[in-house]
Amino acid sequence: MAGGKLRVGIAGIGTVGGGLVKLFADEKSRLNEKMELVAVSARNRSRTRSFDISPYKWFDDPVELARQPDIDVVVELIGGSDGPAKRAVEIALARGAHVVTANKALIAVHGAELAGLSEEHGAKLMFEAAVGGGVPMIKALKESLAGCRAQSVAGILNGTCNYILTEMEHAGRSFEDVLADAQRLGYAEADPTMDVGGFDAAHKLTILSAIAFGARPDFEHVRIEGIEGVTLTDIRLASKLGYRIKLIAKGELIDGKVSMHVRPALLSFDHPLAAIAGSLNALVVDAEPVGQLTFIGRGAGEGPTASSVASDLLDIAEGRGGPAFGRPLAQLADAPRATPAERGRFYMRVLVEDKPGVVAALSDRLAHENISIESFLQMPAYGEPAVPIVLTTQTCTRAALDAAARAIESLDAVTEPPRVMPVEEHGSRRPPWSQR
Amino acid sequence: MAGGKLRVGIAGIGTVGGGLVKLFADEKSRLNEKMELVAVSARNRSRTRSFDISPYKWFDDPVELARQPDIDVVVELIGGSDGPAKRAVEIALARGAHVVTANKALIAVHGAELAGLSEEHGAKLMFEAAVGGGVPMIKALKESLAGCRAQSVAGILNGTCNYILTEMEHAGRSFEDVLADAQRLGYAEADPTMDVGGFDAAHKLTILSAIAFGARPDFEHVRIEGIEGVTLTDIRLASKLGYRIKLIAKGELIDGKVSMHVRPALLSFDHPLAAIAGSLNALVVDAEPVGQLTFIGRGAGEGPTASSVASDLLDIAEGRGGPAFGRPLAQLADAPRATPAERGRFYMRVLVEDKPGVVAALSDRLAHENISIESFLQMPAYGEPAVPIVLTTQTCTRAALDAAARAIESLDAVTEPPRVMPVEEHGSRRPPWSQR
Repeated sequence: MAGGKLRVGIAGIGTVGGGLVKLFADEKSRLNEKMELVAVSARNRSRTRSFDISPYKWFDDPVELARQPDIDVVVELIGGSDGPAKRAVEIALARGAHVVTANKALIAVHGAELAGLSEEHGAKLMFEAAVGGGVPMIKALKESLAGCRAQSVAGILNGTCNYILTEMEHAGRSFEDVLADAQRLGYAEADPTMDVGGFDAAHKLTILSAIAFGARPDFEHVRIEGIEGVTLTDIRLASKLGYRIKLIAKGELIDGKVSMHVRPALLSFDHPLAAIAGSLNALVVDAEPVGQLTFIGRGAGEGPTASSVASDLLDIAEGRGGPAFGRPLAQLADAPRATPAERGRFYMRVLVEDKPGVVAALSDRLAHENISIESFLQMPAYGEPAVPIVLTTQTCTRAALDAAARAIESLDAVTEPPRVMPVEEHGSRRPPWSQR
Repeated sequence: MAGGKLRVGIAGIGTVGGGLVKLFADEKSRLNEKMELVAVSARNRSRTRSFDISPYKWFDDPVELARQPDIDVVVELIGGSDGPAKRAVEIALARGAHVVTANKALIAVHGAELAGLSEEHGAKLMFEAAVGGGVPMIKALKESLAGCRAQSVAGILNGTCNYILTEMEHAGRSFEDVLADAQRLGYAEADPTMDVGGFDAAHKLTILSAIAFGARPDFEHVRIEGIEGVTLTDIRLASKLGYRIKLIAKGELIDGKVSMHVRPALLSFDHPLAAIAGSLNALVVDAEPVGQLTFIGRGAGEGPTASSVASDLLDIAEGRGGPAFGRPLAQLADAPRATPAERGRFYMRVLVEDKPGVVAALSDRLAHENISIESFLQMPAYGEPAVPIVLTTQTCTRAALDAAARAIESLDAVTEPPRVMPVEEHGSRRPPWSQR
């Protein structure tokens, strides 16, 4: 620390890094009271940028930047769970420099190991920007809920997926169509797997669950399903039954064990996450004794994410910010994994040939597994050879539902495997007789 | 600090204090890792309570408790802007003991003075529980948005009012009816003025605005209007025009000056605060560069409020928590007061005798002030002598509207003064041509 100010280096000056450089360039920003930006690093020095990097020392190699003894805080905005991002963070922590990162993959996959390094060398490791963009989800779980016990965290954590699902619903367009547009507009990557496959949301969920439940981050344990299989038919017919389809990332404590999944689910219109449209992110936390808390905001982009990085930097400069995951590593449980006997209500879409007896056969197969139907919808075929039938069940086990789905698939009139999605319950609105 | 643990005394063990005693009684609570509850104070020692106070030293006088040199943190849960609450807080701070309080009136009215005492004696003054119950609004503004510039904070900050308005809408009952019920159920005080008159929300808004805008708390400056004048007719007819009526507490920066008001307003159904039902609290913050953030949760009650007190206690124990209002007192601006030339859209309800020419006269008086009508609704009179007409205007000045209202009041057919409420715009959804 020269002149009492923390010296900051930024590794990676793309969208978010650029936003941070701009915050530092604002003389009135509180960042400048406590800190000084001294160095930046990126792949291409001469690229045209909307901000001036000439006042800062340049490094071609982020690891080299991280190694500089006169840099007190390294901001890692490179991305990727391994490679230069990981090496830069390790090198910084190992020499006692604080690290602020927006890298969810890195923290989800190597978080425990890096938290260990951070504790060993007395350096802080902060990553508010890794989850929920500008929404302070991590601080809320680490600090505001420190006196509470979290039972569940459920969120819309991937703006690309939520944008696609919202656009499909509002514009009546197919998944492929909207995705192609999103790619052209730069909202989705050329390879969209990380987003639409649910992996990005799973990284974020891993981090939130670790903090909420005081367990080691355990990315391998998240059950992941993306939105590729969600069709316009699902969205339209679910809507007629009173539901909206969202990619939900949910972690919950079940008998003291942690269950985590990312999957498309049906939310009734009055579920607090049902109204989260477009690229917004949101998190609903259920904890005792505080009850249910909801946080909503922009989940990505220059301003929101840079703002979260800035908040971590100010926490460090002002002596706040405790252990990486809220508790010292040794106090984090070894994440006993829940193997939930999944029970709940489910949605099923079946494509059938429009002939007599199909509905009877379908409901018979469900009844055989003791599954009661809650709502049922068949639309006119308009001359199409196959017609979708959708239904929601009353509470049943996933095992029973899967058995019924197999039986239904083997019916002659059924032209493709039934599509199944869970109905996401809204804790506080669940009627008392539907205890699971 | 005995044995490395902070010694805590609670002055006031009613609902919230009781919740806190219960949290301390939970051996697994993180509170007990860092702190020890040693003393409590209340008016009546022998009152039947659902928690055990025998392990703690008893004080009849909260000021006496605050004076004890072996108490490191005084939790003030007595309430009231003056009297014993204020004396206890002053005495604790003056001897260097930290203070955690849920007392919005005290902080709104005497916050600057108490922050000064806190700085002078190196004692922390924390009040997350004073605003928004369990929703971490203060921490979000103080810490998460520390790198941002807030433009506005708008919230539903009084659960009693929101409960009454929600119940009026859902059950179709009058204000007086619902209030009487709320009083019987303990949701509203015997003297409901603090709540329904908007004063409680104004206290909270004062605190939030001070932190958001880096200005001294300035309660005297809040323009306050309660919900007593909101009728079932307003709620029903506004609903037909696409709006819901809420008590909105809003602070905003206008040309670098702070404007604060609490008042019933019309929100279009897709405004982020329109869906906040019952006794929930919510806050929408607009700040650069993070954009719009929304926080929702239970705004009062034992669990939520005790949870916020616990989070302050843990911040103190773990060395977090900076100056009371986020910045040192000397850096808080002297709150230059905005005198907004109020412009916007407005709602007007006029009670008229149902005779020819009334509508023409009404629209003529508006046109005379250059006010255009956006929507207009007259319902059948069903034989009643007077019939309500409601309308919303296009953007105009409040001065023009007030002039039109006076002209309308003087019409023969108009039986009582027109009722005027603003339409609360939703920043991010406003079409670009409606710049104010």
